[in-house]
Amino acid sequence: MKALITTVPFGNKNSLPLEQLEAAGIEYLINPLNKKLTEIELAKMVTDFDIIIAGTEPITDYVMEKASKLKMISRVGIGLDSIDLLAAKRRGIEVSYTPDAPAPAVAELTICLIISLLRSVQLSNIEMHNGEWKRHFGRRIANTTIGVIGLGRIGTRVLNRLAVFGTPRLLVNDLSPNYDLEKKFRLEWVDKETIYKESDVISMHIPLTRSTKNMITKTQLKMMKSDAIIVNTSRGGIVDEDDLYEVMKAGHLSGAAIDVFEKEPYAGKLNELSNCLLTSHMGSMSIDCRTRMEIEATDEAIRFATNKKLEGVVPDSEYAVQREGL
Amino acid sequence: MKALITTVPFGNKNSLPLEQLEAAGIEYLINPLNKKLTEIELAKMVTDFDIIIAGTEPITDYVMEKASKLKMISRVGIGLDSIDLLAAKRRGIEVSYTPDAPAPAVAELTICLIISLLRSVQLSNIEMHNGEWKRHFGRRIANTTIGVIGLGRIGTRVLNRLAVFGTPRLLVNDLSPNYDLEKKFRLEWVDKETIYKESDVISMHIPLTRSTKNMITKTQLKMMKSDAIIVNTSRGGIVDEDDLYEVMKAGHLSGAAIDVFEKEPYAGKLNELSNCLLTSHMGSMSIDCRTRMEIEATDEAIRFATNKKLEGVVPDSEYAVQREGL
Repeated sequence: MKALITTVPFGNKNSLPLEQLEAAGIEYLINPLNKKLTEIELAKMVTDFDIIIAGTEPITDYVMEKASKLKMISRVGIGLDSIDLLAAKRRGIEVSYTPDAPAPAVAELTICLIISLLRSVQLSNIEMHNGEWKRHFGRRIANTTIGVIGLGRIGTRVLNRLAVFGTPRLLVNDLSPNYDLEKKFRLEWVDKETIYKESDVISMHIPLTRSTKNMITKTQLKMMKSDAIIVNTSRGGIVDEDDLYEVMKAGHLSGAAIDVFEKEPYAGKLNELSNCLLTSHMGSMSIDCRTRMEIEATDEAIRFATNKKLEGVVPDSEYAVQREGL
Repeated sequence: MKALITTVPFGNKNSLPLEQLEAAGIEYLINPLNKKLTEIELAKMVTDFDIIIAGTEPITDYVMEKASKLKMISRVGIGLDSIDLLAAKRRGIEVSYTPDAPAPAVAELTICLIISLLRSVQLSNIEMHNGEWKRHFGRRIANTTIGVIGLGRIGTRVLNRLAVFGTPRLLVNDLSPNYDLEKKFRLEWVDKETIYKESDVISMHIPLTRSTKNMITKTQLKMMKSDAIIVNTSRGGIVDEDDLYEVMKAGHLSGAAIDVFEKEPYAGKLNELSNCLLTSHMGSMSIDCRTRMEIEATDEAIRFATNKKLEGVVPDSEYAVQREGL
């Protein structure tokens, strides 16, 4: 069996995944372009491989057509928007993922981004580095209404971490309410429009699907409080970047923290805005979570290659999301 | 009675303190220079006033000598390093402060600064604003040894907020161990040298006194792990800024977050270092905490002016700190 490792960097903080592949006798190639591959680049690269140990590059029906030996995709991470699951199923290609590993790292970064915006930390840092001394007033989490959209593995962890700072009013939204969470947090299950209109802080923890694509455009942004802040550590494409730029440029919203972009590396205009805190898709980039993701995805690829029972198979519900365009 | 309000801004997010002064018939002047006063500037300004509603400007024996009518100092905040308490006592000047109000805001900012350094958030933000896309590996709090020096109002709140992120090893130091805290946190009471040598994250929550002045110089910095991070939201002067610059410039430490400086506004060289996260003494600058501090300090000044029992009198232990040079 031969495995193409498309996600980079890979194995450079902890070489265990590579050692495991070698021990299992699996030949591997790490993406020699050392960047996120386009559909065309991947289609050319993948022809000879049985397994892809994948990042977020597009694994489309076209790519699978070119990958005539491909039998398995082991995704390093949680999002499946980049993989055409239905095409994979049709072609008999197994898909596994590592949904739990990134959650703690994404949640922790999210808390940092929220406080950073509420207290103008990144703004003060830039000013101080320019030799300016301006003291900014800020808000504490305990004095804000927080809106969280999506209460899966990451969203619930964000709630848990926020609670220690005091959260007088938590507005939440998900496909269906999870009333078990109410034993732990004082939540109000509301529709998204209520979150947009009444929150001081809005954070999204949802997958990119047909129904979340461009979920937040000018219309939703304008519903938000003029001093609201918005944080997106989930997936690019959920918040329309051009609309966000335009609305913020006009003075609406007090800040935005964007870690994920429709096209990465990001090269848009949001970097003109000093109250826009930008990071380079680093939500899961803690050494421990990244290592866990790489090891889990590699173990799964080895299980597949050695005919063992898979442990991270993508559940039917994820196929349903793509089938039904949810 | 006439009150000089030296700390600025004052009353501009919530005018209640000014209204209260007016209602109590206390004439007031807000520092017309609109900046942190020097000793000389304050000495010239204060001659005619009975009360100072004070920030962190130096209220020395010299200033008090020039302030022949001065009977009371009501400090907006917690630190007393700027006030010569012994001279005040000798001259029969009452001193009060608001030690509880700033703590939650400082603790919250501290958590943000720690995660920001661990995950290179401020660095990525600057790079993104320069059009560069670099994905930085980081660490989660749960994978670090955290050292906290000073477990007063702020330090204990920092522990409380850190705990929700998971803290496998907490090293702590204070003038004397507080074993009550062990019911809540798994702590190791150690000497400062152990904190310097074994921590991945070092955060200080101590007052500036004769014994903490220059507590961390080149010697201590060099004891630290080469990838340690250090956070100072307590007082400038505790970490020697020139030594920090020199040591970091040479590549030691992975980051530092400094909110407080020996001389403010800060105009030193730390802003040359991109892994130095700098903020402009914003620890207590949340609207709610700042308002609470201003109201508490004003209420206390009014109590003094109207012969009511004071509620925020600085305790003897603070005088002892200055008397004994602790």
